[in-house]
Amino acid sequence: MAKPFAAFVVALALAAALPAQTRPPRARDLGVPFEGTPGPNNAITDVHGVEVGYSTLIEGGDVRTGVTAILPRGKTFKDTVMAGFFSQNGNGEMTGIHWLVESGFLEGPVMITNTHSVGTVRDSVIAWEMKHGATQYPWSLPVVAETYDGYLNDINGFHVKPEHAVAAIESAAGGRVAEGNVGGGTGMVCMGFKGGSGTASRVLTAAQGGYTVGVFVQCNTGSAHELRLAGVPVGQIMNRTGPYAQLYGRDREDMGSIIIVVATDAPLTSTQLNRLCKRATLGLARIGGTSGDGSGDIFVSFSTANPGAAPPPRSPLTTHVEMMANWAMGPLFDATIRATEEAIANAMVGAQTMTGYQGHTIIALDHDRLASMMKATYAPTPW
Amino acid sequence: MAKPFAAFVVALALAAALPAQTRPPRARDLGVPFEGTPGPNNAITDVHGVEVGYSTLIEGGDVRTGVTAILPRGKTFKDTVMAGFFSQNGNGEMTGIHWLVESGFLEGPVMITNTHSVGTVRDSVIAWEMKHGATQYPWSLPVVAETYDGYLNDINGFHVKPEHAVAAIESAAGGRVAEGNVGGGTGMVCMGFKGGSGTASRVLTAAQGGYTVGVFVQCNTGSAHELRLAGVPVGQIMNRTGPYAQLYGRDREDMGSIIIVVATDAPLTSTQLNRLCKRATLGLARIGGTSGDGSGDIFVSFSTANPGAAPPPRSPLTTHVEMMANWAMGPLFDATIRATEEAIANAMVGAQTMTGYQGHTIIALDHDRLASMMKATYAPTPW
Amino acid sequence: MAKPFAAFVVALALAAALPAQTRPPRARDLGVPFEGTPGPNNAITDVHGVEVGYSTLIEGGDVRTGVTAILPRGKTFKDTVMAGFFSQNGNGEMTGIHWLVESGFLEGPVMITNTHSVGTVRDSVIAWEMKHGATQYPWSLPVVAETYDGYLNDINGFHVKPEHAVAAIESAAGGRVAEGNVGGGTGMVCMGFKGGSGTASRVLTAAQGGYTVGVFVQCNTGSAHELRLAGVPVGQIMNRTGPYAQLYGRDREDMGSIIIVVATDAPLTSTQLNRLCKRATLGLARIGGTSGDGSGDIFVSFSTANPGAAPPPRSPLTTHVEMMANWAMGPLFDATIRATEEAIANAMVGAQTMTGYQGHTIIALDHDRLASMMKATYAPTPW
Amino acid sequence: MAKPFAAFVVALALAAALPAQTRPPRARDLGVPFEGTPGPNNAITDVHGVEVGYSTLIEGGDVRTGVTAILPRGKTFKDTVMAGFFSQNGNGEMTGIHWLVESGFLEGPVMITNTHSVGTVRDSVIAWEMKHGATQYPWSLPVVAETYDGYLNDINGFHVKPEHAVAAIESAAGGRVAEGNVGGGTGMVCMGFKGGSGTASRVLTAAQGGYTVGVFVQCNTGSAHELRLAGVPVGQIMNRTGPYAQLYGRDREDMGSIIIVVATDAPLTSTQLNRLCKRATLGLARIGGTSGDGSGDIFVSFSTANPGAAPPPRSPLTTHVEMMANWAMGPLFDATIRATEEAIANAMVGAQTMTGYQGHTIIALDHDRLASMMKATYAPTPW
Repeated sequence: MAKPFAAFVVALALAAALPAQTRPPRARDLGVPFEGTPGPNNAITDVHGVEVGYSTLIEGGDVRTGVTAILPRGKTFKDTVMAGFFSQNGNGEMTGIHWLVESGFLEGPVMITNTHSVGTVRDSVIAWEMKHGATQYPWSLPVVAETYDGYLNDINGFHVKPEHAVAAIESAAGGRVAEGNVGGGTGMVCMGFKGGSGTASRVLTAAQGGYTVGVFVQCNTGSAHELRLAGVPVGQIMNRTGPYAQLYGRDREDMGSIIIVVATDAPLTSTQLNRLCKRATLGLARIGGTSGDGSGDIFVSFSTANPGAAPPPRSPLTTHVEMMANWAMGPLFDATIRATEEAIANAMVGAQTMTGYQGHTIIALDHDRLASMMKATYAPTPW
Repeated sequence: MAKPFAAFVVALALAAALPAQTRPPRARDLGVPFEGTPGPNNAITDVHGVEVGYSTLIEGGDVRTGVTAILPRGKTFKDTVMAGFFSQNGNGEMTGIHWLVESGFLEGPVMITNTHSVGTVRDSVIAWEMKHGATQYPWSLPVVAETYDGYLNDINGFHVKPEHAVAAIESAAGGRVAEGNVGGGTGMVCMGFKGGSGTASRVLTAAQGGYTVGVFVQCNTGSAHELRLAGVPVGQIMNRTGPYAQLYGRDREDMGSIIIVVATDAPLTSTQLNRLCKRATLGLARIGGTSGDGSGDIFVSFSTANPGAAPPPRSPLTTHVEMMANWAMGPLFDATIRATEEAIANAMVGAQTMTGYQGHTIIALDHDRLASMMKATYAPTPW
Repeated sequence: MAKPFAAFVVALALAAALPAQTRPPRARDLGVPFEGTPGPNNAITDVHGVEVGYSTLIEGGDVRTGVTAILPRGKTFKDTVMAGFFSQNGNGEMTGIHWLVESGFLEGPVMITNTHSVGTVRDSVIAWEMKHGATQYPWSLPVVAETYDGYLNDINGFHVKPEHAVAAIESAAGGRVAEGNVGGGTGMVCMGFKGGSGTASRVLTAAQGGYTVGVFVQCNTGSAHELRLAGVPVGQIMNRTGPYAQLYGRDREDMGSIIIVVATDAPLTSTQLNRLCKRATLGLARIGGTSGDGSGDIFVSFSTANPGAAPPPRSPLTTHVEMMANWAMGPLFDATIRATEEAIANAMVGAQTMTGYQGHTIIALDHDRLASMMKATYAPTPW
Repeated sequence: MAKPFAAFVVALALAAALPAQTRPPRARDLGVPFEGTPGPNNAITDVHGVEVGYSTLIEGGDVRTGVTAILPRGKTFKDTVMAGFFSQNGNGEMTGIHWLVESGFLEGPVMITNTHSVGTVRDSVIAWEMKHGATQYPWSLPVVAETYDGYLNDINGFHVKPEHAVAAIESAAGGRVAEGNVGGGTGMVCMGFKGGSGTASRVLTAAQGGYTVGVFVQCNTGSAHELRLAGVPVGQIMNRTGPYAQLYGRDREDMGSIIIVVATDAPLTSTQLNRLCKRATLGLARIGGTSGDGSGDIFVSFSTANPGAAPPPRSPLTTHVEMMANWAMGPLFDATIRATEEAIANAMVGAQTMTGYQGHTIIALDHDRLASMMKATYAPTPW
């Protein structure tokens, strides 16, 4: 029978060629077919200049949390980036958004932590910025997002301190990005399995502009019943039930949240970056997300193109910027959808089973079982 | 091997029991497994009081268009319904939305036609309403949406006339709803195949409130490359290429548009109905939609609960309404996602190959081939 | 006593120098002090390239309506302009906005007519565009707005025909702009007095960029009780009661609507043009507007800078555009507020008493009485 | 000459009857005419159940800041209130808004502090809520807003501590509300004069429903040049220049920010409360606000009607709520506009000249001069 999935077969071959022993496997290493061409790190850092830093707090039996910092232009905060936003389901926090939406720019990092530590991280970013003269104005409105880790972490112990926010910023780097139980994603639960931090990227063809789209997720959303990977209903097959049905007085798994950060070097305006954010929903849907009432599905995007586009006061009144044609955005939409889907899969595949607060345990997605499901479906395909 | 898809198996059995000879097959009749329980007609008309009417114009070689009318409370326009809205990608028209969003109510029908006939339909609705005393105020702001049928229809011939709008309204009825090449959907192309009008519904369990969600789509969006049904990449397997790559100076298939109408009898406020609309995107994604730049993906929702919630002037200043708890909305979100997915599949399965304007032809999705793909995947499953 | 209003005094002097006999007086000719420097025509046409055309229908006793066309770049529709939008109170229609907001661009004219003729005008614009090859794509989503003239006009006679829309477009020109009972504004009521079409402009200083902001209003909103001009409660002093209290089952005057079009040659992006639109509300407030429930207060803005910013498909993927710094936008906000205030005043001052449908009469604002109020307040000031 | 301002005369008479010696004068005590009927305290606390608490930090030469707490239903946080939001110019922070907008409800207090202390206050509210079991869910997304006090306060000293947030909450009470240099408003500058906290209210007639609208502002916005009170250009007459022209590299005064909180006991849904928020802009405009680029003009509203409207999980799926007719909202819009205008005036009139950080001084609005301007204009009027 004909093999319709040429792109998938290529992806599998590439994955097999990687020296798997040098780093933990990622979703595509287990045979999950994804469409599109990833960048060299298959990570948000494939967008030139973007850095990711983590502070991971795993202490004693109860502390399972952390802070993640995503720096659009490395440590050069003063040079803002054009930015967009979309709230698919606003049951969560992302500070700094009123000005991001109004101005079309993001100044400083995107920080992600647990729900009850957003304030500490926010003010700590300001203190760090003021100390380093890192802002255009004498004030700052940092972007800090969250997902809830109170099942595995003693969230009301408020264990995230200012130094953890600073450490996440100062440790940020490009290149490979750790996934799973790290940074703000340390204590997260995703589609009923252990979740956390995940990332992926896509590179457009030269005819499409050759741009890169990188996605980073802190994934804590969804129910196992809905989980599907490359169309295979993995969660139902594994007969998995997540932890929330027994907790919090809800009979559904649709708690959690997912923060999605979309970076690109394509020269998009803020209006266009809003459009890009809206496509993250489609990637979330492909993996089975339903954006439940309890889930804070909040997305932010930025473009590293056009340095200097937001000049400080008393500089020239206008600048010149490059701008993508709207009709040419389709491949960027595809890239966002695909990288989002893979970043979520990577957050699960990259995570390990964790026991934490009050002895709660969340098991990781079984790599071998996932690999055998993918093999049964796609090699050879039944069609 | 264990069969993980109990729900799917049930769905298949139900489909087999239907007297297939009395009506054209729908997607689930061909073995496509869908989740959730449909209502008796598996149509938007399963929401009590909702009526659908069509005017279908198939004349000579070039006219392939029409008008669709969806009446929330039948012909009793004066009793408005609470309503919501979401624009996933606004490359299209839906009039009447500024007031719908501001007021939280929809007065009168939702009409759908081709892109260049929105105006005629809009003013014709007003004329009809004024003639019948069907509005609360001496003015009206009708909701009229569109998708573009210029590939199969002589759209610049402006063949839709006032009488077609009136006929769609006056022919509206409950019960079974025709699908495919009917009404506003007559000349549409969906995921590279012949598309058009489609519908589906879901019924919640008694514990979830027993509410019904009905979805109606006029589907003209997407590329065959992305089409997947129940996770199976149908478009890639069929190696289908849509018509637009050769046309209009674009090398992508992401033109088109999809109008999605979500109806429910759950007592949702306008804020909650906005939330429902946002879930239509997730259903669109499940079938492979990417919401391309050229696609007007515009959604409207309404609730038939709470008759009399918008009293006319000089009546009492306040009314009493029933309102769903936000935490209880999850099953309504699931129902919207699932019914949207199925309604799109039904629009394709219900359509026939059509030749129209300038001899252009769009072929319908092959029923036998689709059925055999589904059988190969799901009976038995490979897992 | 010191005269604090140097700017006002200058304005009065300028007004006096104009040859009043050659054209009807405008608000500043009657001594109403306004801040800021107007352009040569004190009209939206002071923004280079912008043209305004009218079709005015005054026939028999009952027809008092029309169509207005505002052309951002004259007749060259294909070159779209960056655009913004804001709905202060969405009790009205402005078609074409989903795509304007999504894309950040406006293609074609802004049309304004009566509430029940929006559809005819919309489809007629498409027909005209198709005939003249005036669009980038084979479809069009025209922007057509409205206010309700059913008190003075037989609105349900549907007297606006396609040729009126075409005539408004084809008659459009730069230079002086007629005000009051013309075009779409023919049958309007504003702040209890005869309203209609009005316009004004402001020019920034060279240090602020030397840009021009032009505003056009079709004003049909507000209650006489609230009317104030330059702080003077003109409506209360004149003890005016508008026509609506006795009509339509409402005991308030807050019906009507106002469409505000803001044009500029400042190089603003769509995000920035949305910001500009929001300032129109502040101008409306200065004249006593309260944005009542029944008023469709809907605003659109565009920038004529950056020709060629939206290239057609298969052209280069990106363009280079000039962009204003956000910190430099303050003078543009002031200009928008001030020009909006003056444009509304001009709509009233430019209108004549009209009798129409069913013998209804709306009287014009008394020029002499207004002038004497302004003189009593500002020359000399009481402070 | 006829005295057109009957309402104003009544207001003046009422003001004169108050025992002025027992409390500092407010704007209407100085003869500023305002329209509408205030509640007994002319404060947000006239909405039954609403409490206001302050923490004021005035220490040494450099600390001039504080925290304000507005409690919709006193200390009973678990019973959420329906809520709305509007960002007129988002150059500021108000946390907790994604969920407020999504859900239509506000849980817990509205807190206001300085820009760099939002985080501390936010996490402190959570800690307080968790300690007192004051939330429906195990997490919380508090609403905390800010304006910038870095001209008078050592903002980068981060002097606001958790105990100040707690003290503001725990000290909250109904009745009279202190104004000017108190709470979060301690170090603020408004329209070039000393600003801060201000409040006002309006009561509707029985025929309008008898509802109360209360407004609270933390006012730090605007330029003296634009200040007008009751139409009189007070700022220009006083020839006042604000402090910012010399600072921060800007040649405009449009920095600052204003947070506006609108409370009502009218039974409004979240959609309707969004509408109410949008009217705060019109009140701001009446006093001369232009919503400059640097101003965070961010508004939140809530209704204390419908207790129990947001039941916790596992309670009944629906509730019954009272809902205002949209057509009846006009008087609530007027009340919001008028109370906003007066609350801003009260913030200025209630403030005293302050010297703070780095010896900076902001002078208060001169009461005697203001009173004599009002007298010259309105008693007798010049018309």
